[in-house]
Amino acid sequence: MQELLREDLRGRTPYGAPQLDVPVALNTNENSYAVPPAVVDDIVAAVAAVASGLNRYPDREFTDLRGDLAAYLSRSGTTVGREQVWAGNGSNEVLLHLLQAFGGQGRTALGFTPAYSMHPIIAATTGTTWVDGMRGVPGGGAFDLSVESTVAQVEQADPHLVFLCSPNNPTGTALPLEIVGAVLEAAPRAVVVVDEAYAEFARPGTPSALTLLDGRPRLVVTRTMSKAFAFAGGRLGYLAADPELVDALRLVRMPYHLSTPTQAIARAALGHADTMLGTVDVVKAQRDRIVDTLAGLGLDPVPSDANFVLFGGLRDSHTTWQALLDEGVLVRDVGIAHYLRVTAGTPEEVTAFLDAVAALGPDHLEGQS
Amino acid sequence: MQELLREDLRGRTPYGAPQLDVPVALNTNENSYAVPPAVVDDIVAAVAAVASGLNRYPDREFTDLRGDLAAYLSRSGTTVGREQVWAGNGSNEVLLHLLQAFGGQGRTALGFTPAYSMHPIIAATTGTTWVDGMRGVPGGGAFDLSVESTVAQVEQADPHLVFLCSPNNPTGTALPLEIVGAVLEAAPRAVVVVDEAYAEFARPGTPSALTLLDGRPRLVVTRTMSKAFAFAGGRLGYLAADPELVDALRLVRMPYHLSTPTQAIARAALGHADTMLGTVDVVKAQRDRIVDTLAGLGLDPVPSDANFVLFGGLRDSHTTWQALLDEGVLVRDVGIAHYLRVTAGTPEEVTAFLDAVAALGPDHLEGQS
Repeated sequence: MQELLREDLRGRTPYGAPQLDVPVALNTNENSYAVPPAVVDDIVAAVAAVASGLNRYPDREFTDLRGDLAAYLSRSGTTVGREQVWAGNGSNEVLLHLLQAFGGQGRTALGFTPAYSMHPIIAATTGTTWVDGMRGVPGGGAFDLSVESTVAQVEQADPHLVFLCSPNNPTGTALPLEIVGAVLEAAPRAVVVVDEAYAEFARPGTPSALTLLDGRPRLVVTRTMSKAFAFAGGRLGYLAADPELVDALRLVRMPYHLSTPTQAIARAALGHADTMLGTVDVVKAQRDRIVDTLAGLGLDPVPSDANFVLFGGLRDSHTTWQALLDEGVLVRDVGIAHYLRVTAGTPEEVTAFLDAVAALGPDHLEGQS
Repeated sequence: MQELLREDLRGRTPYGAPQLDVPVALNTNENSYAVPPAVVDDIVAAVAAVASGLNRYPDREFTDLRGDLAAYLSRSGTTVGREQVWAGNGSNEVLLHLLQAFGGQGRTALGFTPAYSMHPIIAATTGTTWVDGMRGVPGGGAFDLSVESTVAQVEQADPHLVFLCSPNNPTGTALPLEIVGAVLEAAPRAVVVVDEAYAEFARPGTPSALTLLDGRPRLVVTRTMSKAFAFAGGRLGYLAADPELVDALRLVRMPYHLSTPTQAIARAALGHADTMLGTVDVVKAQRDRIVDTLAGLGLDPVPSDANFVLFGGLRDSHTTWQALLDEGVLVRDVGIAHYLRVTAGTPEEVTAFLDAVAALGPDHLEGQS
């Protein structure tokens, strides 16, 4: 089979966190809270309303869903129109559409590692050359970006797409908006994508790149219902951008890519936005608790605007990952030496995680022996 | 925006049949019969069972659904294992995965036009070079394929993928299996895809390429729940192939591409396979009625193994398409001069279509004046 495969795919292994059945799963940044009964009722009713008509194709333009997503985005104060919205089966598909339309063979995408690990994978899937930019600010955080360093790297790569993440996964910190503006200026032919999958968890005063959309036709802000919205199983990712850019994505999407139930269920959930987001404050409190407690245990947590915490200070990431798993707590080894990432779950889940960390022997810590 | 787009996408228009609100929609080869109440009940129950857990990601490997699809395919007598099955949000996505894995820049796909119009479009989306093969057998049908002509074209193109359709859309006729075998031999480095989207409508004695899978690791048979299964809105396409080939598709699919409701709803429908297929015989009878009646009206219908009929003998396709639409009947102009394609719907819909055709003036017919 390998000899039939595209040359650049040979020998690769598929993306994917282990899907293990454990008591405390804190590895994929899901919202640990189940969908509330009132929302379940409306989801079921929405499916009941469309099920007999499933012999017909869905609305290919998912017009009503786009309207609802636009209304949701407009809640934060920046008016977003329906024609500015696009959606897919998870934000991965939305990112795929962007790379299919604006990337491809002979084109370059730049991101700043570590960031969402699907960005380079989707780039590779579409034949787009990936350039791994660097993070780190002298005298600042190891995973931060500065305007100077970002612009210098953008100018050197001269990319067709730039991927920024705010808050960044897996490091957790939000991006100053001045960097987005500077990147747009420094890359005059690039589509600049700000991946805001975790935006709803940001600390107060963190602005969204949505506020920059007006007058910036090359800026794209991606979002997802998988995280704060507690809807990972529904697979609904979306973006906001200039209407003309959005329209171009129709050239590469598969026709009828969003099923009738997907559209109906997402709309039912969006109709309960306040309820669906009702656990965000609890999750944020648990995130802050994780940061504080881990620091007190001599570890090195990165400040977070998301529903997860990257923490360093470990002698060996994999050893500690396995030790926590042995206690029934699944966290994520994101491939950064001495670091692990943990999702902020329920208070009980976080207690189990913090207890398991506290019980680790001193030989798990970096610089101890 | 055009200057940001991939060069080869510039100036294109998106795929898509007009989605018009008309009394008689016979343009997209849907099954005109609604999903029966007993199936609706199980679909709704399936969603009710998973809705509260939508905060969690779906089973990335959709293991149970693969098992159910394998069981469905095995009904026809050829045993298909779960590990031989792959699925996507519509067969378009399954075809995309195939072209992403085995096509791409510098690779070639061959199809025989006219066939499913998404094949070349998806090839282009993935940067795969498309070669338009020709149909037509001297002394035979204008849209038939012969072993000799097919093999000669395959040898000349030396493709990485070959697309065959059986029954072929938009022409309707099934493919002799000896052609599939001959193509596999003539293209020793190619993945050979037999698109059987309409297989369930084939006339008795028409074999499926599923019967060839054993021992042919480069053969792929694609299917869909959109047509005979009356499930176009559910978006579930799938394929059967060698387990190793199937496994390679995990390198290019987006993680969690099939939502939890998509998996649950498709499984509920598959649990009612006999019911869902209960209208196939009615539809086939209407198809045969269309062929017979159109021939009697002096038109030139192509023999069909599908739920649609391509018919020629028209002076100008678009004029007749518009005239039928003016009578509330929407058929498909597939871009073949002098031909239109009509879906076999309910007896009432087919009567409306045939009445509208019978009422057309003689100036709609080719060779009249």
